[in-house]
Amino acid sequence: MKQMDGTADTPELVQLYDDFAAISTSPLWTQRDDLMPMAPSPKAVPHVWRWKQLFDIAERSGELVPVGRGGERRAIGLANPGLPGTAYATPTLWCAIQYLGGHETAPEHRHAQNAFRFVIEGEGVWTVVNGDPVAMRRGDLLLTPGWHFHGHHNDTDQPMAWIDGLDVPLSHYTDVGFFEFGSERVTDEASPPVSRNERLWAHPGLRPLSELEQRVSSPLMAYRWEHTDRALAEQLALEDEGQPATVEQGHAAIRYVNPTTGGDVMPTLRAEFHRLRAGASTPVRHEVGSSVWQVFEGTGVVLLAGEENQLEKGDLFVVPSWTPWSLVADSQLDLFRFNDGPVIDKLGFTRTYLPGQA
Amino acid sequence: MKQMDGTADTPELVQLYDDFAAISTSPLWTQRDDLMPMAPSPKAVPHVWRWKQLFDIAERSGELVPVGRGGERRAIGLANPGLPGTAYATPTLWCAIQYLGGHETAPEHRHAQNAFRFVIEGEGVWTVVNGDPVAMRRGDLLLTPGWHFHGHHNDTDQPMAWIDGLDVPLSHYTDVGFFEFGSERVTDEASPPVSRNERLWAHPGLRPLSELEQRVSSPLMAYRWEHTDRALAEQLALEDEGQPATVEQGHAAIRYVNPTTGGDVMPTLRAEFHRLRAGASTPVRHEVGSSVWQVFEGTGVVLLAGEENQLEKGDLFVVPSWTPWSLVADSQLDLFRFNDGPVIDKLGFTRTYLPGQA
Amino acid sequence: MKQMDGTADTPELVQLYDDFAAISTSPLWTQRDDLMPMAPSPKAVPHVWRWKQLFDIAERSGELVPVGRGGERRAIGLANPGLPGTAYATPTLWCAIQYLGGHETAPEHRHAQNAFRFVIEGEGVWTVVNGDPVAMRRGDLLLTPGWHFHGHHNDTDQPMAWIDGLDVPLSHYTDVGFFEFGSERVTDEASPPVSRNERLWAHPGLRPLSELEQRVSSPLMAYRWEHTDRALAEQLALEDEGQPATVEQGHAAIRYVNPTTGGDVMPTLRAEFHRLRAGASTPVRHEVGSSVWQVFEGTGVVLLAGEENQLEKGDLFVVPSWTPWSLVADSQLDLFRFNDGPVIDKLGFTRTYLPGQA
Amino acid sequence: MKQMDGTADTPELVQLYDDFAAISTSPLWTQRDDLMPMAPSPKAVPHVWRWKQLFDIAERSGELVPVGRGGERRAIGLANPGLPGTAYATPTLWCAIQYLGGHETAPEHRHAQNAFRFVIEGEGVWTVVNGDPVAMRRGDLLLTPGWHFHGHHNDTDQPMAWIDGLDVPLSHYTDVGFFEFGSERVTDEASPPVSRNERLWAHPGLRPLSELEQRVSSPLMAYRWEHTDRALAEQLALEDEGQPATVEQGHAAIRYVNPTTGGDVMPTLRAEFHRLRAGASTPVRHEVGSSVWQVFEGTGVVLLAGEENQLEKGDLFVVPSWTPWSLVADSQLDLFRFNDGPVIDKLGFTRTYLPGQA
Repeated sequence: MKQMDGTADTPELVQLYDDFAAISTSPLWTQRDDLMPMAPSPKAVPHVWRWKQLFDIAERSGELVPVGRGGERRAIGLANPGLPGTAYATPTLWCAIQYLGGHETAPEHRHAQNAFRFVIEGEGVWTVVNGDPVAMRRGDLLLTPGWHFHGHHNDTDQPMAWIDGLDVPLSHYTDVGFFEFGSERVTDEASPPVSRNERLWAHPGLRPLSELEQRVSSPLMAYRWEHTDRALAEQLALEDEGQPATVEQGHAAIRYVNPTTGGDVMPTLRAEFHRLRAGASTPVRHEVGSSVWQVFEGTGVVLLAGEENQLEKGDLFVVPSWTPWSLVADSQLDLFRFNDGPVIDKLGFTRTYLPGQA
Repeated sequence: MKQMDGTADTPELVQLYDDFAAISTSPLWTQRDDLMPMAPSPKAVPHVWRWKQLFDIAERSGELVPVGRGGERRAIGLANPGLPGTAYATPTLWCAIQYLGGHETAPEHRHAQNAFRFVIEGEGVWTVVNGDPVAMRRGDLLLTPGWHFHGHHNDTDQPMAWIDGLDVPLSHYTDVGFFEFGSERVTDEASPPVSRNERLWAHPGLRPLSELEQRVSSPLMAYRWEHTDRALAEQLALEDEGQPATVEQGHAAIRYVNPTTGGDVMPTLRAEFHRLRAGASTPVRHEVGSSVWQVFEGTGVVLLAGEENQLEKGDLFVVPSWTPWSLVADSQLDLFRFNDGPVIDKLGFTRTYLPGQA
Repeated sequence: MKQMDGTADTPELVQLYDDFAAISTSPLWTQRDDLMPMAPSPKAVPHVWRWKQLFDIAERSGELVPVGRGGERRAIGLANPGLPGTAYATPTLWCAIQYLGGHETAPEHRHAQNAFRFVIEGEGVWTVVNGDPVAMRRGDLLLTPGWHFHGHHNDTDQPMAWIDGLDVPLSHYTDVGFFEFGSERVTDEASPPVSRNERLWAHPGLRPLSELEQRVSSPLMAYRWEHTDRALAEQLALEDEGQPATVEQGHAAIRYVNPTTGGDVMPTLRAEFHRLRAGASTPVRHEVGSSVWQVFEGTGVVLLAGEENQLEKGDLFVVPSWTPWSLVADSQLDLFRFNDGPVIDKLGFTRTYLPGQA
Repeated sequence: MKQMDGTADTPELVQLYDDFAAISTSPLWTQRDDLMPMAPSPKAVPHVWRWKQLFDIAERSGELVPVGRGGERRAIGLANPGLPGTAYATPTLWCAIQYLGGHETAPEHRHAQNAFRFVIEGEGVWTVVNGDPVAMRRGDLLLTPGWHFHGHHNDTDQPMAWIDGLDVPLSHYTDVGFFEFGSERVTDEASPPVSRNERLWAHPGLRPLSELEQRVSSPLMAYRWEHTDRALAEQLALEDEGQPATVEQGHAAIRYVNPTTGGDVMPTLRAEFHRLRAGASTPVRHEVGSSVWQVFEGTGVVLLAGEENQLEKGDLFVVPSWTPWSLVADSQLDLFRFNDGPVIDKLGFTRTYLPGQA
């Protein structure tokens, strides 16, 4: 205990502090600098997870742990070393590798939490979202917004793995979650190459006249790799032609958006894809809010709080709030990113710092 | 003159009415029912223009009237018979056929008025919007939002014709227009198949990270026929599969939207494309606000205030405010439509009536 | 007729122009500069109406013309000399003096058009809006948003006059109006000093928990003089204390707003109140959109397109779009203003020019 | 450890679980039901704090602990018994009693966190917000939105106590906070009865023309008791007259709002005031999100998860997420409430349950 001015405690003071606790109170002055730091001082730490290790342990789980009702998913969460006792990548973000063996099914359920999957390799699984089977293929982003029923089934003999992203830590912390079990099997076992929601919504600049309302979450559940790849390639080609198109020299990027608003795909989660030319690097950035990145293709380095980390395909890393980061591309470097940007923006806490900026 | 109760005028009353005029005033009670009718009572009338006639007269204009600075465009406006002395399709909408001979150029200018072009046939012209050459091909919608420089040049030996849509009547009426001359030639004579704005923006559900602000008008200047056609075909296919997708049975439709908002492409103009299956028809609708339609392909009938009008490819018709209309498709019937819907919506005057609705 | 390049007409050209008309078309090139001027070139002209003249003719109308069903209101509209044949103050705005004799009633009706009243002098009339009697007193702004039933009754032996503002010209031009007759007498003849809507809504920064939705129009129907007067006095007092509060030196002003949005009171009409200190003047402004002003108290001068007009209490003047205006206050000068600002803003046509600005 | 189907662990499984931890991962299936409960299952518990105890310990703190730079405030936080080791009222909300002796000053600082004060009794302190001295009086709500400098000084010989509300727990959890020290003394020691922001903004339905932008937080920093009291009294009077005005029979309530938007006063915190007639009660409600209530005046009972708690003036209680609550008024019962409603709403997690609703 200490007084505000740092002088020693008297018996009266000791008694006072005891009495605080006795009536379920606690003084601000002993904890102000911890609770309200000069700048964000996260417990979560920067960390890199290696895809080979993740995939290997997921494969072993596939052999040892059946998927089914109750546990619901064979998903292995990234557990930030700074947040012991949890499987949280950051205070707001959950990220897991999910593994589904040949002909396995992850049963249907729905929850208030928002979720997506991003596919680093493989294909053959369909995620069925509110009864609409959505093929999962390399490079695709697949959404399951809050309170949409969803299950996954593997239509092949081969296992498949991908990453899941959810707002579970934030939802758990703020006590907003609801959960409901659905069918043990997926409600539509068809395996169409294109889902119905894509057929309605994946047309650039067009929307169905039967669906004119703004939606809280995107009605488009699949963002296909061929579109992402082309958008990034065009940005770099435009840059070559001397046109403004990239974030900064050699750094192309897109944000996945809700076509009914132009804003983020889900109310709590932002998703982006970044491409750096071989040899390009980004300036050191500080951003409020936390991110998870996955290398999709290529090799390079990420500097996290000044420390260099080599990156290979599939590697995942987290950038806690206000942790300085920058990327250096050895080869062309493709990365998927998701973060809690919509939360930070809507609550009015957005700040970014780039050295050299006012 | 009449009193409010219809009794005859006295000398004092006659004097009073003279005195109204003398001090630039006018009584409401003699004109209330005209000014404020029980339901919209437009002066504009329903009317059909035949594409063959329009194209023929445009071709003759091409021979007789050079295009150039001052007149600016070889555009022939639809002049609603109910609005004599103007070239207005409706009180808010301008619609013209524009014709550009082989290797001709319509000089660059910009204006506060919003404009678009829709192409019913042909190709070979590039519209250059703020320096970005945009190819014009059959079925495409091309935007030139307010205060964007634009000119057109024909890169071929063949003439080309299309329709222009603008908010000129509304802008003129409300005194909001500005105009500025630009280059006499287009500022970029390249003829790329795809414009730079498309390369940045025409990716479904993706937006460049370098462009995150909402825009008043769409940053996408070209909506290509292949996307429109596919979107409509998918709606009908989904309907065949028993899924909700169409506006009503046999009636597919899309709205062209601003990808930064999901809303209308420009602040004063709404654009849509409709497809009816052969044999389908729509219920009779009354809508506040006026529309211009063009048949893109197919044959059918439009009922306008109860009167049947046969429709062929290219025919244009207007539906004044609150005029009942319905469509009947003989063959598959494809139609482009534009209207003042964003104006009506934003000013709070939206109403629709379908028989049988409460 | 003329060609785009000004050369003389040939017989073929004469025939062409005849044929344009025959098929209800009209060429753009002969009218482009008129339809699309370099800057707004309104037909409406700046004009001043004298309150004494208006009141006198209203009084004579009170003697000669009964108020009642059909004509509905004893309202005498300002007829802009530049817009002959109409009773329009500007292309978008209607403004009238309304006069109601002792114990007279103006029957109830409702219409899609938005309306308000502003009281320059007197009291004793209640306007009953959707059954809620609203006292009208000097300096008050009273709303009757679109499709709200309203009637007026004079509870005293004395006549009362005020001004009405409506969007009738715009509504008529765009064909959006609906009208419905209501009770011939007001549905609540009580004469409370404060209306129910004020009791719910006129508390600064507070809203009823039972009414949390955004409203297209303000739910507050009365903006009382004592609040307006105090707000303006405080701005000038703050200015005296060296604080930012006024629009510019010596020029205080408030905008009336919808408490559910902070935006304009109605979707088509903006209302403001301005106060200039004695001796103050405003820089010359050009604004897109048209305004009507009324002097509430004091004397001064308005420059309209360079011409000086002396102003006294009650005088009304219009400022057409882009017409330069400035005010000079002899005494403290209080003015009410309304305009079509929400229309101009929402349709993306807003521009303001102040000399010396970039 | 357990498998998804509950069978016993094998050595391979034990090894697998060890290996999860070794590479900073953690399986979902062992924790899914805890992380993603069927309905919110907060660790925070319902709890009541007694004003007399709080005030007494604050007074003792006033004698023993000086206020000053570093500790910054003599504020004693409510520490939810379900959240040991923190001084959090709920996972998102901080609430403290703050005590300032005669002529004491709490130094100026600013932080990203949003804050307010609510005054249950006393007066004589001015909180100086961005240099603007704001008097604090019984029944007032005073805002200090994020990144506004603020300090407090007591202008009298008497101590004063009030409650502070902040989003500290949420801000700390999500790592969004910044902090900056300011002047050790308040930058303006004047003691005006009304602050400058009130003089600009506290006029119902009026806003300064010099301040037309939407603000993330309210520009009005003081919500005075006389307005709140009158608004509630009017709602009950209207209810007596048979008019819709209250939330439900005998239950009047207002929400404090940002006059530039009509929405919540700050982006993370909602504030309301409720009044129940003597004898009235509210139905049992479940709400997503957590609240803190304080009795302002009167006596009654709050049922929290079925348990009755007697309430007296000044008592504070928390309602964790989805905890059923209802109020019963013995006398007229006035209560202040704040919660994380804007967070829940903006992130799309809003749900309310009232028995008998679908």
